[in-house]
This record gives sequence, structure tokens and C-alpha cells, in this order.
Amino acid sequence: MTQNLSIYDRSVVLITGGLGFIGSNLAIRLAEQSSAEIRIVDSLHPSCGGNPHNLAGITRPVKIHRFDLREISRLREVVSGVDVVFNLAGNVSHTMSMEDPRTDLRNNVEAHICLLETCRAVSPRARIIYSSTRQCYGRAQRLPVDEEHPIAPVDINGVNKYAAELYHRIYYHVHGLETCCLRLTNTYGPRQFIRNAKQGIVGWFFHQVLCGEEIVIFGDGSQVRDLNYVDCVVDALLIAGKHPRAAGQVYNLGSTETITLLELARQIIEIYGKGSYRFAPFPEESRKIDIGDYFGSFARIREEMGWTPRITLREGIRRTLDFYERNRSIYL
Amino acid sequence: MTQNLSIYDRSVVLITGGLGFIGSNLAIRLAEQSSAEIRIVDSLHPSCGGNPHNLAGITRPVKIHRFDLREISRLREVVSGVDVVFNLAGNVSHTMSMEDPRTDLRNNVEAHICLLETCRAVSPRARIIYSSTRQCYGRAQRLPVDEEHPIAPVDINGVNKYAAELYHRIYYHVHGLETCCLRLTNTYGPRQFIRNAKQGIVGWFFHQVLCGEEIVIFGDGSQVRDLNYVDCVVDALLIAGKHPRAAGQVYNLGSTETITLLELARQIIEIYGKGSYRFAPFPEESRKIDIGDYFGSFARIREEMGWTPRITLREGIRRTLDFYERNRSIYL
Repeated sequence: MTQNLSIYDRSVVLITGGLGFIGSNLAIRLAEQSSAEIRIVDSLHPSCGGNPHNLAGITRPVKIHRFDLREISRLREVVSGVDVVFNLAGNVSHTMSMEDPRTDLRNNVEAHICLLETCRAVSPRARIIYSSTRQCYGRAQRLPVDEEHPIAPVDINGVNKYAAELYHRIYYHVHGLETCCLRLTNTYGPRQFIRNAKQGIVGWFFHQVLCGEEIVIFGDGSQVRDLNYVDCVVDALLIAGKHPRAAGQVYNLGSTETITLLELARQIIEIYGKGSYRFAPFPEESRKIDIGDYFGSFARIREEMGWTPRITLREGIRRTLDFYERNRSIYL
Repeated sequence: MTQNLSIYDRSVVLITGGLGFIGSNLAIRLAEQSSAEIRIVDSLHPSCGGNPHNLAGITRPVKIHRFDLREISRLREVVSGVDVVFNLAGNVSHTMSMEDPRTDLRNNVEAHICLLETCRAVSPRARIIYSSTRQCYGRAQRLPVDEEHPIAPVDINGVNKYAAELYHRIYYHVHGLETCCLRLTNTYGPRQFIRNAKQGIVGWFFHQVLCGEEIVIFGDGSQVRDLNYVDCVVDALLIAGKHPRAAGQVYNLGSTETITLLELARQIIEIYGKGSYRFAPFPEESRKIDIGDYFGSFARIREEMGWTPRITLREGIRRTLDFYERNRSIYL
């Protein structure tokens, strides 16, 4: 599935969190394959994953605005005239949200109220794609988890991300904004912040193996996950940004290649050609918010908008290792 | 069901929003029927329903602290040493939450993160009862609505109240705080802010009839509701504050006496002995967030903790009219 992005050629696109992991990959793709006007807002808040180096390889210059979405007056300027907003800004760390829930609230909830209010005021016809998360489901009551699964987030980050998702849906139903929410599962790949374990265990596995450290597996590593390579998530965002059916909808992403965390560690080591792993007891603060096994159904987005992940796990791991190997000084 | 409140005699009780509608009724009851130490925090934020006159009839003095829950240093002082927190502070207006979502967020979400973090730090053994709302369900997919009904709030207030409910549940599961959430339905009675329609339609019906105005019914008035007289809600709070089964639980309140809004208007007029009503088109901003018919099942709290509403609708209306008639200058 290679997308033809000429549909974006005459569009003005705003990417919030555009210096972050997914945002920067999206900006690079759009810059390469379309002539869209690309605007980026990023606060580079230290608790988030933004990194100015993430746009190092971009093929043409884009306008980068560094401010917090809560600065309404500046936000009005960059939102003015946009056709599509990819609203990716926010905190992703579950453990940090438990340590500092108020910061998570500001970045994951208040910021989005500001964005939605501003869109409503100055660009009410813009399509807005919000990166929600499977974390809203909490511990799976059935597998695979579809969009009708009960909501029961187990940590503050999950609550806050879900609250912002609901805002997007209400702004569609009440104010007619064309919002669409994608519930992302574990996403991995180039340009993720992997210098510590806070942004997720998968990136941390890559960090450990690339730094010659033993991969530490909490518990027995039997928890099942589904993973998406970042390019596949970018595919989904770009489809949702233009698809006529997306407005007002919520879609899971996901993968048919489910894998245990132990098997994932083994596969990363095998593909890298060296490395080792060891087991360790679950740290208390992680155990309490662990969700056990998870994999989602992405049947809805496949059937309604034709998205499927196109990069195999093996290929994704290979590309990811390659990228960080080539950019050690920036990311490791 | 008359409660014996001697169980509270040696307790230190904190009521957030204690100058508001439900909080003041709770404080008055506790002051009258127990020797509990009662502490009240209220910001008297103009968007909330607090009113210093609400405690006019209290039988013994209580300590009132006027500040915003987000002022952590002051909060630490009043939370220190408490046994039970009745966490009732917040905004209740659905329409105001749509007009000013950021204020609703501050008062209904950020304030509660501050309260929970403070309890965790200085009074981790305190029981915390949170007044949640049936608004988290949105439009009923089945009637009566029980606690397993899907979550789909239709306005910002509903999202924010639900986010705070989830915080309370997470602080139980992760940090062991003894939180309990009651999902209140329409509550009416003495000490409600009824000077405008923002705090709910039922209070506004009382205002209109007491001021000699026609009761204005939006649409055809056929929407079904369940109502609780405030004393019955106070019963539920006081049970939950001490019941061994309450920790970590979520309970609907409700009533077996369901009634349409039209029938409610007629009954208020009949009991008051004069008045009239007329129909009017639904204002656009109310229609968009209207939930249609609603009544909840309160089987869970009845079975687990023995609560049922004890004041009939007719008796509740009579007492409410009496109260406002006697206190016209303050409330009308």
C-alpha cells in the first residue's frame, strides 16, 4: 500500500507535536511526497519526546513554531487557514503521568481544549486527526480489543488521553468540527525518544541492545502486544486526514503479528546480531499499571478506509536498528 | 431510613464545595446529628454554586476555608488529619462547560488531581467520596441505566466529571486510597443555586414558579428523568463515607419515581397552588447536548449498602418550595 499524497498538494497542514516521534516522521513523508504547506508546532516540553534533530533529514524547509498549545494567541495564527491538523502533541509516559499528573493534564488535556477551541474559532472546516491510544481500554476483557470494548484506563495518562479523545468527539457532534480519533497501539521506529524507559518499553529494548546493555525483561515477558512500525501509523494518519468517512469516527490501529515481550527482545537481538536479555522483577510502579496481554482489532479502519500495516515486524525492527545505528550521537 | 450518625462522632470530616448545594446540606446534617469535626473548603468561584448563606441555619460553628483546591499548600493543612473527605467541589453547568471548557477543566479535573495527590501525601487512609454524575453515560442506550452502561458523555462537563471519577478509581487501585464514586442524577432541594438556568432545569422550574413567571418547557417536555431530593443524596454520601464495602466502588443513585419534565412542571405548579407553563423551542445550545430520556438503576447501592431514596417527589417538592419561600431574599 503506497499512498499517493498528491491529494495533499494544495493543503495547509498543521502538525502539533511535529518535532516528536510520530509527528516528525509524518512531516518528513509529507514534505517528500507532496507540496503541502507544512506548519509545525512543538513546545519541546522536556517531559514530551520532541527533538529538533528529528527533522534533520527533511527534504524541504518547513515552518517550525516553538510554543505551548495553551498560548492561544500564537495558536490562532498558526491554525488560521489550515485544512488538516494532525494533533499529535502530548505526553506519552505512563509512569511520568503517575509521578506528575498535573503536567500530564496540562499537556494532554488542557492543550487540546485550546486547540479545539481555536480551530472552532478560526478554522471550523479543518479536518483534525487526534492520536488517541489503546491505553483507554486498560486491561483487556477480551482479545482482540475492538472499539466497543469497555473503557477502563489504569493510569493518569490513559484517563487524560481519553478525555481529550472525548473532547474531539464532542466538538464533532456539537460544533461540527471534522475530528477523527485513531487509537494507536505500541508504535516503534526511527525518531522515537529512547534515551530512557519512560516513553515505552519497546524503544527501551532498542536502546539497551544498541548500547550493548542486557535487555531487562520485567516478569516473565509473556505479555502479548501488537506493534506498529511508525511508517504504518503515518499511513493511517494521512488516510484519515482526507478520507470522506473519517469525520466523527474512532478507529483502532493494530497488527496481525502479535508477539510476547520476551519474543520481541529475542527477535531484536537476533536481527541486531548480538545482545542478551535477563529477567527482573516488575518494579512496583510499573506492575500496578501494567495491562497484561493486549492486541487490538483494526477491522474497522481496514474495512472503512482500507488501512493495514504494510511493514512486517522483522522489517520494522531492521529499519529501526539501522536508523539508530546511523544516528547514535543524537538518539543514544 | 433514618441514619444514626454517631459513627461520625470522633471523625474529622472535610467537605470540598461545602458552601455549595449538596455540601451545605451535608454539613448542616452532620453538625446537627454528630459531633464530627467539620472542615469546609470552598473557592466560591462565581461559576460554581457556592453561597455563604447556605450555612445560615447550621447548629454549631464549622471552620470554613475559602480557597481553590489547586492551592496545594493550603490544601495540605486542611487535609491533614481528616478521616473522611466528601469531595463535592466543582462546576455543574453543562452549558457553561461548552462556553468555557477551560474553566470547567480547572474546577472539575485539575482541582481533583490536587485533592487526590494531597490526600495521598498527607492522609492516605482517609475515605474519599466523590460526587460523580449520570452525565458520563450521555444518551441512554437502554433504560434503566446501570453502572455497566457504556460511557459516552455529550458535553465537556460530562467528560471532565468522568475524568475526575477515573482519577479517584485509579488512586484506589494504584495508591490504595479508599475512594468511592457516586453517580448522582438530577438533585433538587434547598440551597441550590436557582437564580439562573445554568445549574440545571429543575432548579429553574422552582425559580420560575416562585417568581410568578411561566415555567418554560423546551420541546414537548416528554423527556423522562429521575430526581433525588438532596436529603436522600446526603444519606447516600454519609453511608458511603463509613460503609466497609464502599472503597473502590462506583454507584448510581436514582429513584423509582420517574417523571417527564412536563409532568414535573405541572406537579410543582399544583403543589405551589399557582403558576403556569408554556412550551418553547429547544435553544440550539441545549438541544445539541440534550440526553433525551434518562433514569438509572440504583440496585447496586441498595443491595450493597442499603440506600434507597426515602423522600417522595411530592414531599420533596413541598419542602423545596417551603424553603425558597422562606428565603426569598437570598435565593430568588
